[in-house]
Amino acid sequence: MSLKTIYWENNRCMLIDQTLLPGEFKELEIKTAEAMVEAIKMLRVRGAPAIGIAAAFGIYLGIKDSSAQTGEIFQDEVRKVAALITSARPTAVNLFWAADRINALVASHTKSSVSGLKSMVLAEADQIIDEDTAICNKLGDYGAALLKNGCTVLTHCNAGGLATASYGTALAPVYKAKEQGKTIHVFADETRPLLQGARLTSWECMRNGIDVTLICDNMAASVMAKGWIDLVIVGTDRVAANGDFANKIGTYGVALLARAHKIPFYVAAPFSSIDTAIKTGREIPIEERDPEEVACGFGKRTAPNGVKIYNPAFDVTPAQYVTGFITERGILNPPF
Amino acid sequence: MSLKTIYWENNRCMLIDQTLLPGEFKELEIKTAEAMVEAIKMLRVRGAPAIGIAAAFGIYLGIKDSSAQTGEIFQDEVRKVAALITSARPTAVNLFWAADRINALVASHTKSSVSGLKSMVLAEADQIIDEDTAICNKLGDYGAALLKNGCTVLTHCNAGGLATASYGTALAPVYKAKEQGKTIHVFADETRPLLQGARLTSWECMRNGIDVTLICDNMAASVMAKGWIDLVIVGTDRVAANGDFANKIGTYGVALLARAHKIPFYVAAPFSSIDTAIKTGREIPIEERDPEEVACGFGKRTAPNGVKIYNPAFDVTPAQYVTGFITERGILNPPF
Repeated sequence: MSLKTIYWENNRCMLIDQTLLPGEFKELEIKTAEAMVEAIKMLRVRGAPAIGIAAAFGIYLGIKDSSAQTGEIFQDEVRKVAALITSARPTAVNLFWAADRINALVASHTKSSVSGLKSMVLAEADQIIDEDTAICNKLGDYGAALLKNGCTVLTHCNAGGLATASYGTALAPVYKAKEQGKTIHVFADETRPLLQGARLTSWECMRNGIDVTLICDNMAASVMAKGWIDLVIVGTDRVAANGDFANKIGTYGVALLARAHKIPFYVAAPFSSIDTAIKTGREIPIEERDPEEVACGFGKRTAPNGVKIYNPAFDVTPAQYVTGFITERGILNPPF
Repeated sequence: MSLKTIYWENNRCMLIDQTLLPGEFKELEIKTAEAMVEAIKMLRVRGAPAIGIAAAFGIYLGIKDSSAQTGEIFQDEVRKVAALITSARPTAVNLFWAADRINALVASHTKSSVSGLKSMVLAEADQIIDEDTAICNKLGDYGAALLKNGCTVLTHCNAGGLATASYGTALAPVYKAKEQGKTIHVFADETRPLLQGARLTSWECMRNGIDVTLICDNMAASVMAKGWIDLVIVGTDRVAANGDFANKIGTYGVALLARAHKIPFYVAAPFSSIDTAIKTGREIPIEERDPEEVACGFGKRTAPNGVKIYNPAFDVTPAQYVTGFITERGILNPPF
């Protein structure tokens, strides 16, 4: 994997500005917590795991030049920066998860020196990257075993390297299978309205030497009917205790179409995305986004002024449509 | 219906330039056969019935100033203009149908005066409009009986007034039900890649006082799961003898999703769209269009340069997913 979505180098955080893809590949140097908030808010960095990493580095950027004299004062500064960072996208659970982790770390070491605490925060951010990398690796290995040489995977949205620190989740099995010498084809749903499939998945597949074909979301049924798809792999934002899961809008439809064509449907899900506090998918809140994303997402207004638009960002797929969850501990099959 | 998609007035053909919708409502004055070819080619006028009408007027424009002295010479001129018009979109069956009809009319009256023949051609074009209007009217009446007050219809692409001379096909039942005093809601799939649903269906529904909500194609499954959709009505480009039918790409997926949610799925189909020479949907040829429609259809490139793209314009839905065909002679239920 040549792609590094987000990493630390020479005292600043480097990240690929995903809003410019696929037209331009540009790495941003993020040097302040405020710049990180802007990057998260504007979706320059996106994808649940990548956003957790961005939060951790963002907090470090906010406190690395602190002149606090005591661990208690420093702890207070960390909390303030963490609150600033989590305000960037209030619904992104990984922001809170990373901020909580760093707050807890500092809270349990307030007797340490401030310089020692600073190092601990940076080390924790690095640790989050390492853990994410390890999870994607393992998940990819388990998933790759599902992929036969020459097979074709359909995916929706982007749960690839650009959404994580390394292999991604849904695309990790594809990349791992390629490393094992298999030829894998990918069909990427463009994923309206924000086109993460067209802009990001097809871009990173091409960059990593994977044969990828882009389709509009409404073509998935046709390519399945033609027998071109061997299995579907998607990512997830949250899995309920019963196996229902939320993912990018359109995923539920793909699951129904896969079932109608008897195509296995897998969800790549790190254990961290399983929320056992939520019993079924009905309890997962669904974010509705700005109608303008649908009405004029391409630099040109393509719907009448004032037309009513429904724009949910996610949908929930019932567990009954899931063939298996690909996790870092192996494939989980029903019942979940 | 205040909307007149295409009509004859003051010696020229007037038509709404649909490429400018929804941003701008502009009627074009088409004064020559060449201008009509351009309008058809550029999709300024589209939709199977509307294109048949455009072809008829286009032929008349090409011969109305003919100085032919005999019916035979005139017949030859008509044939040449007809060939020019049908070259505009070689796969559009209605172009050929209208051209054949006018060629046959002239061929059977070569003993008439040239001025008489000219009048006959114009009268035939008017006749095609009248027939289309009558068909849409009747089809709409039969379809309206399926719609209960307060119900919600999901449609895909545009098979509304903009695709015909008047009420449209799939939208005719909605307009007729409204005239009967019913309140009908419409969900319009935006219909990638060319967004006929966003640009045309939502525009004409708003203009005709129909409550319409625009969604991306990949949101249809979600709104069905919410119980918001009472029935689906789509148009068709061609129906095979066994009831399989071709329509805009994405229709097949909508049919599968409707079946999964036990939602009735109707196809508005004038008898002229039934092609008994074709036994099953497998024999219907599927046009593949320019990948650029997917990669940069809206003035901005949204996919990587050189990415492989599959862009079929239509798909085929097997008859088993059709609850009924709404025709000008009534509702046809299976077996077909």
